[in-house]
Amino acid sequence: MFEGLLACDPSGPREKREMKMDEGNDFEGKPISCKALVIWSPKNIKVEEVEVLPPKAGEVRIKILYNALCHTDIALINGWVTEAKFPTIPGHEATAEVESVGEGVKGFEKGDIVILTPFPQCKKCEMCKSGETNLCEEMDLNVLTMAMADGTTRFKCKGKEVFHAFGLSAFSEYSVVREIALAKINPNAPVDKACLVGCGIATGYGASINTAQIREGDTVAVIGLGCIGLSAIHGAKHAGAKEIIGIDKNPKKFDAAKKMGATQCLNPKDCPYGTEFSEWFIQNFGAVDKSLECVGDVNCMRWAVEIVKKGWGRAVILGVQPPADKLTIAPTLLLEGRTIVGGCVGDWHTVDEFPMLVEKVCKGEIETDPMITHHFRLNEFQDAVRQMDKGNCIRAVFELSSH
Amino acid sequence: MFEGLLACDPSGPREKREMKMDEGNDFEGKPISCKALVIWSPKNIKVEEVEVLPPKAGEVRIKILYNALCHTDIALINGWVTEAKFPTIPGHEATAEVESVGEGVKGFEKGDIVILTPFPQCKKCEMCKSGETNLCEEMDLNVLTMAMADGTTRFKCKGKEVFHAFGLSAFSEYSVVREIALAKINPNAPVDKACLVGCGIATGYGASINTAQIREGDTVAVIGLGCIGLSAIHGAKHAGAKEIIGIDKNPKKFDAAKKMGATQCLNPKDCPYGTEFSEWFIQNFGAVDKSLECVGDVNCMRWAVEIVKKGWGRAVILGVQPPADKLTIAPTLLLEGRTIVGGCVGDWHTVDEFPMLVEKVCKGEIETDPMITHHFRLNEFQDAVRQMDKGNCIRAVFELSSH
Repeated sequence: MFEGLLACDPSGPREKREMKMDEGNDFEGKPISCKALVIWSPKNIKVEEVEVLPPKAGEVRIKILYNALCHTDIALINGWVTEAKFPTIPGHEATAEVESVGEGVKGFEKGDIVILTPFPQCKKCEMCKSGETNLCEEMDLNVLTMAMADGTTRFKCKGKEVFHAFGLSAFSEYSVVREIALAKINPNAPVDKACLVGCGIATGYGASINTAQIREGDTVAVIGLGCIGLSAIHGAKHAGAKEIIGIDKNPKKFDAAKKMGATQCLNPKDCPYGTEFSEWFIQNFGAVDKSLECVGDVNCMRWAVEIVKKGWGRAVILGVQPPADKLTIAPTLLLEGRTIVGGCVGDWHTVDEFPMLVEKVCKGEIETDPMITHHFRLNEFQDAVRQMDKGNCIRAVFELSSH
Repeated sequence: MFEGLLACDPSGPREKREMKMDEGNDFEGKPISCKALVIWSPKNIKVEEVEVLPPKAGEVRIKILYNALCHTDIALINGWVTEAKFPTIPGHEATAEVESVGEGVKGFEKGDIVILTPFPQCKKCEMCKSGETNLCEEMDLNVLTMAMADGTTRFKCKGKEVFHAFGLSAFSEYSVVREIALAKINPNAPVDKACLVGCGIATGYGASINTAQIREGDTVAVIGLGCIGLSAIHGAKHAGAKEIIGIDKNPKKFDAAKKMGATQCLNPKDCPYGTEFSEWFIQNFGAVDKSLECVGDVNCMRWAVEIVKKGWGRAVILGVQPPADKLTIAPTLLLEGRTIVGGCVGDWHTVDEFPMLVEKVCKGEIETDPMITHHFRLNEFQDAVRQMDKGNCIRAVFELSSH
């Protein structure tokens, strides 16, 4: 499984981690005090000292190594996630090191290097056993309750219970996560890069490979050039697409898109005023075999459906739109043989398949450098949000623990 | 290919057809005068004496044997088909006998029994050669121009040119059709029943088998119990669905649905006032694996998407809605792993696969009797429309020629 070991850079993270492990661990069974980013209420965030309780049955306490900021975290901070409970700690795209394990946990031990997933894989529920989906039934429990399986939380701050956003809360130096939401990865993986596999890379790369089913020679359009869109471009390239058109209103992202595999990029703002984008696109570039919407905008979703070919065109919807927004399309697009499909986290079976994706990062098959534009520390969080809002930032990776 | 020959009823149509052929054919190369149903303008229809010109290159002149009335004909009559040109002759679900062939036609000869298709299969265009769709590029030419390939028509009435609706115009005793829109069938097929294969049966049965990809043990909901919906139920049964729920506002259709394979039927009018149908359906019956919309109503289309299971649910859109209506859905339905797909004429490659479907009718594998509720002659057309409007009629079969 870890044949990519030699391909990884053994400097840096590995040596540092070993040093840390040598120091021993005095906290097993005891609470740990550490820094975390707490959202007290929408738009009210602060770095706080939190208490991280020991893991209970089926849970693992982890030291977060690196965590990348994703737009979903910003949505949570802005109060757009309707089910959210506050206070909570955001963060879900992370690598970590196992600190201690709860009762009955057999798959992990202290020192293991793991990647977190907001989409658990329990391998026991009907959905997991069906083999037809990666949507584990434990997902709702994990994500919607924002608590552990017993309904309680493992964070305390200023005497208050703090909820586990996405069941992960990776914007904390330490966290407690259910074991079904962790995948053990190559211990020599570049953890500062591999964290992107947990959400952005898995979602975009998998959407091209698994959901869009891109084949050798296909023409592909990717709408939205954030981490998911760039990873979709990368997946399309690896699947053998002959033409990959990247679409974004921000031309600053075109360079990264080309590095990831786009054959050309275009700005929808170049579409003449009064002309529908889809018509303009088809006139100038021709309808494509597959399209992927990576924005979370219902107009972009409609474009995705309209610009794929009659007969077999496949539009993949990946973006998460504001909750009240709806997708409106002419049903004739369907009658003419187009398919609209969605999916979560690239249709990967997270626990089983994330290690393989991390191996591809180790070997350099999956590139991350064009996407990692910024590095920050926890106390620089507001800077990261500002850079992301400005459109300067594709992914900002936070170093959480000085391992 | 015609192993079902013995299974067919050799009485009736066969003997009569042979008698007719013995009479010889004096019209080759000359116009034929016959009766046809002419739509002069929306809602203005009349049985008229028309002149049917001889077939040109690549065309076949046929004697229509039986033609069934489909809702698309009514849409055409009512002026809802925006591209329609008048005057025209409707009709597209028919069996016929070849009267004469134009230059270069090699696949057909006088006396062949054929089934018509509004979806031609030229086997030469990029779409046909792709192997990925049954939407032949000649389709637009055939259907939208309402003329033969050279842009001219083969009908005249009262000195006026009459257009070929669907490229077929089967509500005429004789018609001229492009050879790519004809499939040669078992000469002993029950032509008064097999005509339904040309549109309703192919569309519904194929949607379950090919488009919905129904598998052994699936649960299925079919919305709309006309000929397409009943055929979809039949296809679902043959594909091994364990539960098939038929849905229609007209409970008179429930008997036929059960005969075709529905395990239960329900009336959406039974949904309590103020409750959304999809919610009520899921509460009472559970979400289904596959759904098929066979109405042509955008609310029913939305229901079809909402009532399929998270993870792998597949909603198939078959109905043709009024042109300005749009389908509006919550994109989250897609993110949760649902697929929306459409298709035409059951995704069959018409010329190649219709003969196989007719064989199934010959062998009684595909039942037609529960769907054929009425028989008419051309001059009773208004009666047929009235019965269809009242909801009493599933399919009305017209005997066109006294063969």
